[in-house]
Amino acid sequence: MALVVQKYGGTSVGSTEKIKHVASRVKRTRDAGNDVVVVVSAMAGETNKLVDLCNQMMDPPDPREYDVVVSTGEQVTIGLLAMALKTMGQDAISLMGFQVPIHTDSVYAKARISRIENAKIFDNLKAGKVVVVPGFQGIDETGNVTTLGRGGSDTSAVALAAALKADSCEIYTDVEGIYTTDPNIVPEARKIPKISYDEMLEMASLGAKVLQIRSVEFAKKYNVPLHVRSTFTETEGTWVTQEDEDMEQVVVSGVTYDKNEAKVSILHVPDRPGIAAKIFGPIAGASINVDMIIQNISIEGFTDLTFTVPRTDLTQALRIVEPIGKEIGASEIVTDDSVAKVSIVGTGMRSHSGIASKMFKALAEEGINIMMISTSEIKVSCVIESKYTELAVRVLHQAFDLSGETV
Amino acid sequence: MALVVQKYGGTSVGSTEKIKHVASRVKRTRDAGNDVVVVVSAMAGETNKLVDLCNQMMDPPDPREYDVVVSTGEQVTIGLLAMALKTMGQDAISLMGFQVPIHTDSVYAKARISRIENAKIFDNLKAGKVVVVPGFQGIDETGNVTTLGRGGSDTSAVALAAALKADSCEIYTDVEGIYTTDPNIVPEARKIPKISYDEMLEMASLGAKVLQIRSVEFAKKYNVPLHVRSTFTETEGTWVTQEDEDMEQVVVSGVTYDKNEAKVSILHVPDRPGIAAKIFGPIAGASINVDMIIQNISIEGFTDLTFTVPRTDLTQALRIVEPIGKEIGASEIVTDDSVAKVSIVGTGMRSHSGIASKMFKALAEEGINIMMISTSEIKVSCVIESKYTELAVRVLHQAFDLSGETV
Repeated sequence: MALVVQKYGGTSVGSTEKIKHVASRVKRTRDAGNDVVVVVSAMAGETNKLVDLCNQMMDPPDPREYDVVVSTGEQVTIGLLAMALKTMGQDAISLMGFQVPIHTDSVYAKARISRIENAKIFDNLKAGKVVVVPGFQGIDETGNVTTLGRGGSDTSAVALAAALKADSCEIYTDVEGIYTTDPNIVPEARKIPKISYDEMLEMASLGAKVLQIRSVEFAKKYNVPLHVRSTFTETEGTWVTQEDEDMEQVVVSGVTYDKNEAKVSILHVPDRPGIAAKIFGPIAGASINVDMIIQNISIEGFTDLTFTVPRTDLTQALRIVEPIGKEIGASEIVTDDSVAKVSIVGTGMRSHSGIASKMFKALAEEGINIMMISTSEIKVSCVIESKYTELAVRVLHQAFDLSGETV
Repeated sequence: MALVVQKYGGTSVGSTEKIKHVASRVKRTRDAGNDVVVVVSAMAGETNKLVDLCNQMMDPPDPREYDVVVSTGEQVTIGLLAMALKTMGQDAISLMGFQVPIHTDSVYAKARISRIENAKIFDNLKAGKVVVVPGFQGIDETGNVTTLGRGGSDTSAVALAAALKADSCEIYTDVEGIYTTDPNIVPEARKIPKISYDEMLEMASLGAKVLQIRSVEFAKKYNVPLHVRSTFTETEGTWVTQEDEDMEQVVVSGVTYDKNEAKVSILHVPDRPGIAAKIFGPIAGASINVDMIIQNISIEGFTDLTFTVPRTDLTQALRIVEPIGKEIGASEIVTDDSVAKVSIVGTGMRSHSGIASKMFKALAEEGINIMMISTSEIKVSCVIESKYTELAVRVLHQAFDLSGETV
């Protein structure tokens, strides 16, 4: 008898009909002889409604009370799903964050799970019940309700799977798995049957929005096999697991892109120690996430510094950087908010050379200029003009031969 | 420094604007030098929405899971009100049922409060905070979420006032207090400045829907002074307190009515021991509330038995009574669903005679036939034809001189 944790997102539980459909899936897994713990999100749209109420009341909303309000979305779903299961003759019980309990730190709205007690869940599984747990919520050491931040339900599911030493964690969503790239851009994009945690982390952080990054980190840390699959079909999805030999054969697993990028260049900066810290310290202090940084070679004691930030943070970043530019004697600050980032990701890059140059060549052949480059062990990212994004994705998908049938 | 518990119902917190208005009232009470604990209901309409969701999912809904779902309504309001207070510069904290904790038995959807711990509330009051608590919800001894049943927020407020030994419990609603009768029927109806717990209990159970009966029982038991008043005006409302000498001077405090009545007569019933039990046992077993029972004098070993039930329960009552009628050899069962009950209530009746006959005479003078009569120490109720309800109420209000200025 296996123990399976299943997580269903907001669109999967978006109506009472859909919750009944989820219940039938859960029951089938249970009828197949598995113990099942289900993690659910709020019904689609509910969290936004609750956030709106909070924003109407206080700007910004008090974090502790915000969590009290928004955690109700998941609480409604767990009760409804437990009822749906009972209607089908499958005994079930909902357990709220404080009842499990799911312990977190006290960083409201962005809490991190510290410990999950498993005794009460095991007792209920032993009694033949399906246990339904709200995603996204927990309780801190003094009994305050906390939430994990948007998308935190994936993390709840993986953390529960780890705490229960579950055999697998199934993440149900509205797509069939992880694809080699966005099928809206490349119709021949292929579902990836198996991908490593590290690749998935690169894919997630580079713009593939299927899985929350923290949940993958958690899964990697505790070695929880994830199965990302569709709520609405029976087909196998994508397994996210430890790296194995098969994976190393695949040089490039996927092509990702991010259009939410903007570029800032500070020209003619004196090239001396401490300048970078002077610029990037205050930006980090404002919680702006700087992605790439490039510094040209120094000419006569001066250099140019270019970095990227999320497009939505550009105005704020400029407000911080402009006085610093004046102070350090930079000649000019130039911005460009029509840039995008395309990346190739693959574990196999570790053992294969020439991948980056193949990427640069493919882009060059289409006349796409590369403005910035950054690399890691398992990815290469290029910043390009935004208008070429789709073209670049298609070209790279082709160049690395990612189309065709699922292996 | 006094300690005040304030309770605001669903219409008082029906929108974000209204919640802000409530916050300003709370703050004013606090600024006047009082410690304040606030109990709130769900925003108007929310509980119905949640109940609908439950009914769509399971019929009847599982009681434990029903409580998990419907208790979210109040949880949203406490968070929003705490935020509204903070926005106004008044520190505040919400405490859910399990955080206080408010202990109840395990009768889901109709739980009764057994014990309220007051340490956490006192700690927060001492820290200068307003404490906001959800009405209607609690937690049982094994940590399950429970609700007290519709209207339970009044009971939560009174129980909290008792547990905290509060100086008073203010029940805010959309009317200005308790009236001598329904102002929609008698425009000269007068607000009652002070009324005893016992009178209020009779008024509440006879159809005046301002206060939940159980909350008044609780207030009486723990001698908590209640102040029923309007959220939207500053005027004093009605105090519900222990009986005092002033009250004994008032013979009749109010006239109430209930149109939700139906009458069942079982004719030609053998007059022997055990017959009543045979009929009313099964009716009680079906949770149908029999109000009045009248049995005529026996003629030749047979009698007629008449009783009233809520109109909505008539069909179900008949379904139960018909086979029993056959079994015991009754000749016929006659029903009448066009009856109503009018009542006069007053502590002063204890020490004044002739009140009932004055009532009968007033009704007779208008040609209103009395079908059934029941009396207690402090009330007289008559069942009449439904179409005379408004006329009867006006006549009685006049006969007992209830109109005019508030004393």
